[in-house]
Formats: sequence, C-alpha cells, structure tokens
Amino acid sequence: MIAFTLRDPAYAERVRASFGRQAFMTHIGAAIVHLAPGEVDISCLAKPQLTQQHGYFHAGVTSSIADSAAGYAALSLFEPGTGVLTTEFKINLVAPARGQRLIARGRVVKPGRTLTICRSDVYAGDNDAETLCATALLTMMQAPGLSD
Amino acid sequence: MIAFTLRDPAYAERVRASFGRQAFMTHIGAAIVHLAPGEVDISCLAKPQLTQQHGYFHAGVTSSIADSAAGYAALSLFEPGTGVLTTEFKINLVAPARGQRLIARGRVVKPGRTLTICRSDVYAGDNDAETLCATALLTMMQAPGLSD
Amino acid sequence: MIAFTLRDPAYAERVRASFGRQAFMTHIGAAIVHLAPGEVDISCLAKPQLTQQHGYFHAGVTSSIADSAAGYAALSLFEPGTGVLTTEFKINLVAPARGQRLIARGRVVKPGRTLTICRSDVYAGDNDAETLCATALLTMMQAPGLSD
Amino acid sequence: MIAFTLRDPAYAERVRASFGRQAFMTHIGAAIVHLAPGEVDISCLAKPQLTQQHGYFHAGVTSSIADSAAGYAALSLFEPGTGVLTTEFKINLVAPARGQRLIARGRVVKPGRTLTICRSDVYAGDNDAETLCATALLTMMQAPGLSD
Repeated sequence: MIAFTLRDPAYAERVRASFGRQAFMTHIGAAIVHLAPGEVDISCLAKPQLTQQHGYFHAGVTSSIADSAAGYAALSLFEPGTGVLTTEFKINLVAPARGQRLIARGRVVKPGRTLTICRSDVYAGDNDAETLCATALLTMMQAPGLSD
Repeated sequence: MIAFTLRDPAYAERVRASFGRQAFMTHIGAAIVHLAPGEVDISCLAKPQLTQQHGYFHAGVTSSIADSAAGYAALSLFEPGTGVLTTEFKINLVAPARGQRLIARGRVVKPGRTLTICRSDVYAGDNDAETLCATALLTMMQAPGLSD
Repeated sequence: MIAFTLRDPAYAERVRASFGRQAFMTHIGAAIVHLAPGEVDISCLAKPQLTQQHGYFHAGVTSSIADSAAGYAALSLFEPGTGVLTTEFKINLVAPARGQRLIARGRVVKPGRTLTICRSDVYAGDNDAETLCATALLTMMQAPGLSD
Repeated sequence: MIAFTLRDPAYAERVRASFGRQAFMTHIGAAIVHLAPGEVDISCLAKPQLTQQHGYFHAGVTSSIADSAAGYAALSLFEPGTGVLTTEFKINLVAPARGQRLIARGRVVKPGRTLTICRSDVYAGDNDAETLCATALLTMMQAPGLSD
C-alpha cells in the first residue's frame, strides 16, 4: 500500500468543514462515510429526484460523488492554507447504478505539489450486495491561497 | 459542417419526453434550450443548492448537464425503439463556473451504429458575457430495446 | 479478486499470434512478459529511438504499450472468432518515464459482451526499483467477425 | 476564433528544435507540417512498421502524434525558459486509421499559467480524402526551468 505524508494534522476537520460548504452535496443528500489520509468515501441514498429516465441514479450523481470523494481524498493530504480544484476527470460507467445506495470511494494514487492524481470507484447496491457501477481517474490541483 | 442522417422524424418529441423523465434534471433546474439533429443545449440557472465550497457551480452540476446534453444530442439521431446510455466521458474544467447561468452545448462528433462520440462545451456567465468553463468528450451507446 | 469466464481455451496462442502481427510493437521492441486470463504485461527496453526531448521514454511509447497490454488483456477473455478494437482511453502521466525498462500491466476491470473496461498501470525503472509513471483507463470493443 | 498572447517571438525555432530532439518522432517518421501560435500539425506516412494486427496505423502511433502535436501547440505559447510536459490525455478512436497518411492537428483550447488545455484531431487518408479517425483532449503543463 501507499504511505502518504500528512501535512495538516487537522485534515479531518478541514475536509468535513469544506464538504459542509458544498451545498450541492446536501442538495443530493450525500454524506462522508469514511475519511482517512488520502481516502474519502461519499455515500448517497436513492430517491426519485436523483434518477435518470430509466429510474437509475443519474450519471451526474455518480460523477458528482466520484468527483467530491476524490477531491477530498486529495485535500486531506494538502498543506493548510491551500484549496483543491478539480482539473479534469474521466469516468467509465460500467453498469447501471441501481439500488438503495451509491458509494464513491476516492483514493489518492499519486500525490504531488501541484497535481494530485486520484481514482474513484463507485458502487451501487443494497445492504447485502454491491456492484461496481463506475470507475474514474481524476486530476486535482492544489491551489495555494484558496480557502477551502 | 457535418450532415447527420435522421432516423426518427419524431426525434424532438422523443428527446423532450425522455428529458422530462430525468428527475435529476428537474432537481437541478435544468432545461433544454436548443434542440436540433445531433445538437442539444441544456441550461441551468445559479442557485445556492448547486454550489461547491467557493460558491461556484459544483463540478457535478457542470458534468451532469454536459452529460445530458451530449446524451440527448446522440439520442436525436438514434432509431426509434432504442435508448441511450453514457458509456464514459472525460471533462476538463478549464475555468471556475461562476455567473448566473451555465449552458452545456452537446454536439455529435461521430455517429455510429453502436457508439456515438459527442463533445460538450459548457459556458458560464451572465447575459452579456459567457466564458468556456468546461469541455468534455463523451461516448454514448445506442441500446436496442431500451425504452427512452 | 475478480474471477473471469474464459471463452477460448486457446486464448494464449491467440493473443501471442495477434501481438506478433502488431508490427509497431516490434518496431518499438515491446514484448509480452506476462499473460493470464484478463491480464497482460508488456515490456519495452530503453533505447535512444524511444525518447522525447528530455531523454525519457516518449509519452507515445508509454501509451502504446499501455494500450496494447489492455487490449490483449481484453482479447484473452473474448470468444474465438472475435477481434479487439480500442474504443478510447485516458492516461495520466504521473512521473517521468526514466530508467532501463518500461512495463505496462493491463488488467480487465469489467468484461462485457460489447465493451470491456480495462486499466493499465505503467512502471518505469531498473532492476531493483520501479516507479509508477502512468495509469490509464481504457474501453475495448469485442468486434465479431474481426480476425485477430 | 481565439486570439492567443505570444510570449516568445522565437517560438517557431524553439518548437522545431525541441521536436528535433524527440527521437521517437523520427523513429516513426513524423514531421511538423504546420506551425502557428497555438497550432501544430504533425504528419506521418504509412509504413509496415507502424501497423497493428489488421494493417492499420497502431493506436499508439495515432496517440503519439496527437500528443506531440498538442504539446507543441502548447509550447508555442509558453514563455522562453519553460518546457512542456503532458499531464494527461484522453483519446477516442472513432474510425480505423487507414490510408497513406495520418495527420494530427493540435490546437490550444485554453492557455493557462500552469495548465494549458489542448485538443488534437487526427485524420487518416490519401491525397484526395481524409477521415477523422481520432479526437483527443489533453492537459499540458508549463514547467519552469525545464529546457525544451
């Protein structure tokens, strides 16, 4: 496994406070369910407002939590006084996102001074079974002077 | 310019009906503002629920309308009795998405029997000025037997 | 781990024969160094003809072996009488590709009837140490009737 | 159209000199055939060494010239004393790359102090007809102190 260098002992508070200001995460009912250095999981429960035309989670929801999970995984390793911006991401939607719960597991693949590369795997399912429904590769930027 | 073959004379009704069933588009306040064969623009007005931690549109909103605009641009060229699925997409967020309005312009780049490649450019701004804030490349799949 | 269904007992011969017909792999000196269902590693030794302007492996070489490794990982799971086509891929170049050897480890993430999603991680280095220099996400298509 | 700010009057010499040091471009027979601020076209003629198993240009060749064309389009706008690194790219291979010639047209989409976003469209064909065979979206980084 990869061992990361932690630059902010208060990383957890910083991540949770910033997440709390992402009003869009509240709007879709998303919550952080796991947080460790370089690792953030974000989960979201099924509700009618989040569906596409076939009744599954909309790809936009899947992408949104994949992006936030990876962004906060990156931020957890940043220095205090810096913020995170998503530069770009690519996502493959490998199976329909159906079930009661969607969970995105964001992980830092390669931390860097300017750019941090992350992966997010998104699983959909019910209590007893989860299926990989999306996998994403994302580039996050450490923005000095950005309050996060 | 590219001339597309239209396989469904009722494409506009089909696209609008399917879009109407994407509850997530309603949830974020998105609407189709342009529709032609191989072309769909989707717009969304700023509101607090759509923001990330710095007050801009969340990348998830940008991605969601970029994805739906491209998906419906593709569907407009599909045969009746087929549906559209997003296979994958990649998006570069090139500037902060700030302003009163976000608009995604989805365009078919290369139609195909199984896969249709699209581009979506997303602009943010106010009435008088628009800035490119994201550009995406997307792969859509024509799914026979899927009711859209 | 993922268990894959093998549809062609002669998969290894088929992969090696097809790889042997990829003249470009010979041109860059690439060879298959690991082959199992859903898994192919392709390696390439440093030589002046493969460099970019700073003397490292050119991103094109990195991408080429990442692509072929993933394509053959996919082909290893396909039915006899079908061929493989790369639909699209995304690659993050996370560190300079320097050293004596470059190795791409292609792995199937999600097999499918039409599309198979793969990952390729590329490592650069010498005998004693390897560094991740690129990570890619790729979509492969099973093409019936294509002789591979 | 986009008007770019030129920061190095000697950009053309700088691009050509750096390209001349990309031994891999020589190895595949690639040449710059168009050069303007923010725009570089790279062409490559068909030969047996560049093929994949069906006799078309290998996706690695397509990707290699797409990458170099975009990288040099970016470098043409950089300040003297900086170099260019490919951060990541995504490419869709939309048609078989067959014919006598492959040409990648790299264009800057959004220049930036750290990151410059580019597009590369690759066409394959003979004298009288060209077909789009690939379209790519790429992120280039301006590296201060890197001699290019």
